[in-house]
Amino acid sequence: MLTVPESLEGWCLLHQMFRVSWPALVQATNDERAELAAGLQELLAQAPADGGSSIAVAMLGHKADLMLVHARKSFDALVQAQLDVSRLAIAEAFESTTSYVSVIELGMYEMTAKIHEQLMAKGLELGTAEYRTAMKDAMQAQEPRMTGRLFTAFPARRYACFYPMDKRRGEIKNWYSAPFEKRAAMMRDHGHIGRLYSGEVSQIISGSIGFDDWEWGVDLFADDPLVFKKLIYEMRFDEASSDYGEFGPFYTGVQFSPSQVTNWIEGQTPALEASSLSS
Amino acid sequence: MLTVPESLEGWCLLHQMFRVSWPALVQATNDERAELAAGLQELLAQAPADGGSSIAVAMLGHKADLMLVHARKSFDALVQAQLDVSRLAIAEAFESTTSYVSVIELGMYEMTAKIHEQLMAKGLELGTAEYRTAMKDAMQAQEPRMTGRLFTAFPARRYACFYPMDKRRGEIKNWYSAPFEKRAAMMRDHGHIGRLYSGEVSQIISGSIGFDDWEWGVDLFADDPLVFKKLIYEMRFDEASSDYGEFGPFYTGVQFSPSQVTNWIEGQTPALEASSLSS
Amino acid sequence: MLTVPESLEGWCLLHQMFRVSWPALVQATNDERAELAAGLQELLAQAPADGGSSIAVAMLGHKADLMLVHARKSFDALVQAQLDVSRLAIAEAFESTTSYVSVIELGMYEMTAKIHEQLMAKGLELGTAEYRTAMKDAMQAQEPRMTGRLFTAFPARRYACFYPMDKRRGEIKNWYSAPFEKRAAMMRDHGHIGRLYSGEVSQIISGSIGFDDWEWGVDLFADDPLVFKKLIYEMRFDEASSDYGEFGPFYTGVQFSPSQVTNWIEGQTPALEASSLSS
Amino acid sequence: MLTVPESLEGWCLLHQMFRVSWPALVQATNDERAELAAGLQELLAQAPADGGSSIAVAMLGHKADLMLVHARKSFDALVQAQLDVSRLAIAEAFESTTSYVSVIELGMYEMTAKIHEQLMAKGLELGTAEYRTAMKDAMQAQEPRMTGRLFTAFPARRYACFYPMDKRRGEIKNWYSAPFEKRAAMMRDHGHIGRLYSGEVSQIISGSIGFDDWEWGVDLFADDPLVFKKLIYEMRFDEASSDYGEFGPFYTGVQFSPSQVTNWIEGQTPALEASSLSS
Amino acid sequence: MLTVPESLEGWCLLHQMFRVSWPALVQATNDERAELAAGLQELLAQAPADGGSSIAVAMLGHKADLMLVHARKSFDALVQAQLDVSRLAIAEAFESTTSYVSVIELGMYEMTAKIHEQLMAKGLELGTAEYRTAMKDAMQAQEPRMTGRLFTAFPARRYACFYPMDKRRGEIKNWYSAPFEKRAAMMRDHGHIGRLYSGEVSQIISGSIGFDDWEWGVDLFADDPLVFKKLIYEMRFDEASSDYGEFGPFYTGVQFSPSQVTNWIEGQTPALEASSLSS
Repeated sequence: MLTVPESLEGWCLLHQMFRVSWPALVQATNDERAELAAGLQELLAQAPADGGSSIAVAMLGHKADLMLVHARKSFDALVQAQLDVSRLAIAEAFESTTSYVSVIELGMYEMTAKIHEQLMAKGLELGTAEYRTAMKDAMQAQEPRMTGRLFTAFPARRYACFYPMDKRRGEIKNWYSAPFEKRAAMMRDHGHIGRLYSGEVSQIISGSIGFDDWEWGVDLFADDPLVFKKLIYEMRFDEASSDYGEFGPFYTGVQFSPSQVTNWIEGQTPALEASSLSS
Repeated sequence: MLTVPESLEGWCLLHQMFRVSWPALVQATNDERAELAAGLQELLAQAPADGGSSIAVAMLGHKADLMLVHARKSFDALVQAQLDVSRLAIAEAFESTTSYVSVIELGMYEMTAKIHEQLMAKGLELGTAEYRTAMKDAMQAQEPRMTGRLFTAFPARRYACFYPMDKRRGEIKNWYSAPFEKRAAMMRDHGHIGRLYSGEVSQIISGSIGFDDWEWGVDLFADDPLVFKKLIYEMRFDEASSDYGEFGPFYTGVQFSPSQVTNWIEGQTPALEASSLSS
Repeated sequence: MLTVPESLEGWCLLHQMFRVSWPALVQATNDERAELAAGLQELLAQAPADGGSSIAVAMLGHKADLMLVHARKSFDALVQAQLDVSRLAIAEAFESTTSYVSVIELGMYEMTAKIHEQLMAKGLELGTAEYRTAMKDAMQAQEPRMTGRLFTAFPARRYACFYPMDKRRGEIKNWYSAPFEKRAAMMRDHGHIGRLYSGEVSQIISGSIGFDDWEWGVDLFADDPLVFKKLIYEMRFDEASSDYGEFGPFYTGVQFSPSQVTNWIEGQTPALEASSLSS
Repeated sequence: MLTVPESLEGWCLLHQMFRVSWPALVQATNDERAELAAGLQELLAQAPADGGSSIAVAMLGHKADLMLVHARKSFDALVQAQLDVSRLAIAEAFESTTSYVSVIELGMYEMTAKIHEQLMAKGLELGTAEYRTAMKDAMQAQEPRMTGRLFTAFPARRYACFYPMDKRRGEIKNWYSAPFEKRAAMMRDHGHIGRLYSGEVSQIISGSIGFDDWEWGVDLFADDPLVFKKLIYEMRFDEASSDYGEFGPFYTGVQFSPSQVTNWIEGQTPALEASSLSS
Repeated sequence: MLTVPESLEGWCLLHQMFRVSWPALVQATNDERAELAAGLQELLAQAPADGGSSIAVAMLGHKADLMLVHARKSFDALVQAQLDVSRLAIAEAFESTTSYVSVIELGMYEMTAKIHEQLMAKGLELGTAEYRTAMKDAMQAQEPRMTGRLFTAFPARRYACFYPMDKRRGEIKNWYSAPFEKRAAMMRDHGHIGRLYSGEVSQIISGSIGFDDWEWGVDLFADDPLVFKKLIYEMRFDEASSDYGEFGPFYTGVQFSPSQVTNWIEGQTPALEASSLSS
């Protein structure tokens, strides 16, 4: 009986949240602040060798003043990004409050079911080495078609929302003991709601099983923050969420361009310049 | 089958809680304290360009000495408010203990049901693009009538109470899988209790799905703090709360006028002056 | 159907827990320590204008070295007490670890039922404005008789125990959806156990719904700390506790007299002098 | 119906856990370190007036570097022990991470049942004042026979393990609503497993209801730490644990002699000298 | 009825997680950094007397910058390792964020069942002293055959993943009250999935009952971090995990060679040199 859906993976992601010691920045001289800004701006503007990128979000609330999100091809490159940020001059005014380690993931319930049927039709038996290899090969064959979504650029939209989530493993309601077909149907309904908002919101799903404390991370980007509220509230009523979704802390803020780091350090809400990113 | 109630949204809200390093303030010179007070007072007294406002509450207990609540038209303006507070001279004596990001919300169970019936009567089918657009338009048509409640001024009452809450998504009792009509009836009963206290308490409900860790924030203002206890205790027995309400931490304190910042910094319980606010 | 029991309220209470930086006190000069002691002693010895009082308890364990409990007539006076403590010279050596905000409460299940019967006999209907007013008036008429318990002095007993608690709102066992009569019977049984210990323990129950994170706070005072253990263990088997009680952290220590502050600061277990308090 | 088992109580216990600022100790001069060591060693070696004692355990992991356990006759003497440790010169390098307040307890299910039968045979009625007094007297008559276990010396064994625990009060599985006889039988089975390890492990059970956040504390001492793992794992399958045991954090380390404090401060794993304690 | 599976134990393990104060390292002089590096490198490169070893992992995220894992023959030697790390000059820039104390363990469901059958066939009765001794002897006879797995070297693979876990003791789903044969079957299925990944991942299971807050610790090592995600996700659907697995925080990073400490301190992602370890 088919149980495990396949997935495809793209960018390795590191979300970093920092609280900023503003008094230290305010008390620095203009020259010192300019230097501090230059270091962070350079790190954000510099394209990493692997084609990845890093974005900055000015956050609301005490959980963080700043979120950086790094996309890289490998964990090694993420370690390097983390070291680079840690060693910035401005890092002395940063307190690391939380973080998230994950890998962009496309869940493939429908494709898994389809390939499964083909493999069964060819006489392969689920769980055998032949089946596993054939399934893996068939999934990898899908990858080129998905490259744009697996190695996507960060959307150039003003408002950002991040939260981690789990599928419930309760004593009564347990996602992982629900039949594949039921889970596939719930994910289909869930995706249907997402598509109703497709023009208004850009979404990046990343998987973190084995890497961090929740199973998935969700990044949403929109031109109006109310879209986050409307979309997530509507989804909360679909069965995949109502019965099986468990949500971690929610983080929200405004994305800004590397060139706006100075404004931010000087206490001005930093802007997202149209030219800085392509969605 | 109708499941998702519509809502209307008003002010964006940022609650900020600070613990104060009183020894630092006590040890400052009179002139230094006067300057520290002036900065905070000015921030509170200054009307933001978008018609919003900020209030101050002297809190009871170790969770915070001071709560600031900012109402603004956009998340950008809230980011600016957060930056402005962070950069006050007195912020060096503030430790940010918690915060809350939300948007004033009017839940519209009854109106949603009424419009739904009208749309069905017109032959529109639930979930179609036409239905969604028509529902959205009909709700927006309600907005002007609600502006006073969506963009309300903070009530000029002495005692303040804030707490966040969720609707339970348990394995047995699950708000989000209860039928719309049952939820509407429970909200009706819940609102009925609220109305019994309408003269005694002013309430601001804000939604935080997608923005913060709970689903709603509740601000209550009254002339007698016992009203909070009586009201919330009575509500705890209605089904919407007893079976489906989950409550976060509770915060309470006394609201005070911007002109009283100096008194507060000098260790005098600050007053709420009648002229400072209009309810 | 009667659901909500009435209550009467007395002193507003603020419990404050502090961890003390002993090395700072040890390293101070004798004169400095004498001054630090004098400030705290004066605050404890000074009778507030509203007839309230404050007590000090030397605590066991890392959660706190010192607990102060303030009883005042209003939240405004509690804010003042908090400000006064924060501004003591010794406060620089205090770290606020937790606190509790509540109001002394007498729960009135039996009286509510009795008045309810009387009102029904008079033809008043539950939930109407007339009924609510009549119930309120009848309860207020009880108040003078209860003043001694609502505005009680802190018991002059050596050992103190404080803990907050909730009534369970589980998915299966839910206090708030149990019928009034069942709750009244459970509270009667619960009170019966309490009365078996009435000579040995003095108890202050305060309500904190709307004010703090649990629903009630319990202060126990006794001449032998084993009484706390025996009483609470015995109660744990009654239905009100076994099925519906949820308990927060427990705090314990020895109450001491204001005049003993110096001894405490000098590292001697401070005494409770017979003359300092009247039970 | 008999519900509450009686117990006998011995030493009051205070467990203190400290994280040590090793860089401060390393950077001190040899003379300073010798003084710091002397203060702690003296406190440990000094026999308190009430016949109690204090032991030191070098802990594994970040939760603590050092555990001190103090046994005293009264809470007053424990407060004094806490003050004495707080005021040591070395306390400046200690960060208090956790603690536990409890009283050595012998649970008496079987004896309670036996005395209960005798009282019933004499015609006393459960719950009456006569019954309660007679039960109390009969239990106190057991005390002299138990003195060695109630006022035991700390076992002179190298490895120490401490953890707090509760009996579950779940919505389905609830120890406190199980019948006395069922609980007595489960405790009998539980004790049976303990006795299979009696030569290999020394155990001290202390009760903390009313004093600290869990209901019981368990201290185990052995000559081989694997005994802790084997014993607790085997017990985890008995019904008292599998269905009703809830466990707090676990702490483990090596007990050492007061005379070894200097070695420990100098960075050598401190020894437990045979002569320092008698089991 | 057979309930408790036997196990064999090997290395004692201490996992230590540290957050690093990078600004302090950046601001040190080149000579100071070289000295700091030398101390840590020496500690990692030095083979302990008991044949154990220590490895270093550069971590992703705010939970830790560095993980050290020490394998030693005794708890005494682990205490020494902890003291040695605490006293390094670089420890002043380390903040200990978490740790884990455990012992490498081979769970022996199948072997226990087999020996049990043999003992029953010989007429020994479960639970008797003879049975227990015979079982213990038979298990110890297995040990030499298992030495390689009990006292394994750390795998020389780049990517590391660590997480602690429990078997669920829920009110409905309870591992410890499931029959031995059912548990044995679930562990067999669980192990089957593990074997499907045997070439791609090296796994070390350690038991921590009695030593730390979870029951088991899992270390995984692989040449590709996606293997962690795929393996753990697939396992999440087997019954041992879906119904009975409860997972703690997840930690991940890149293993590096002692000789790379300098690179790491200088802000370069440190490498795992082929020669430094043998898998």
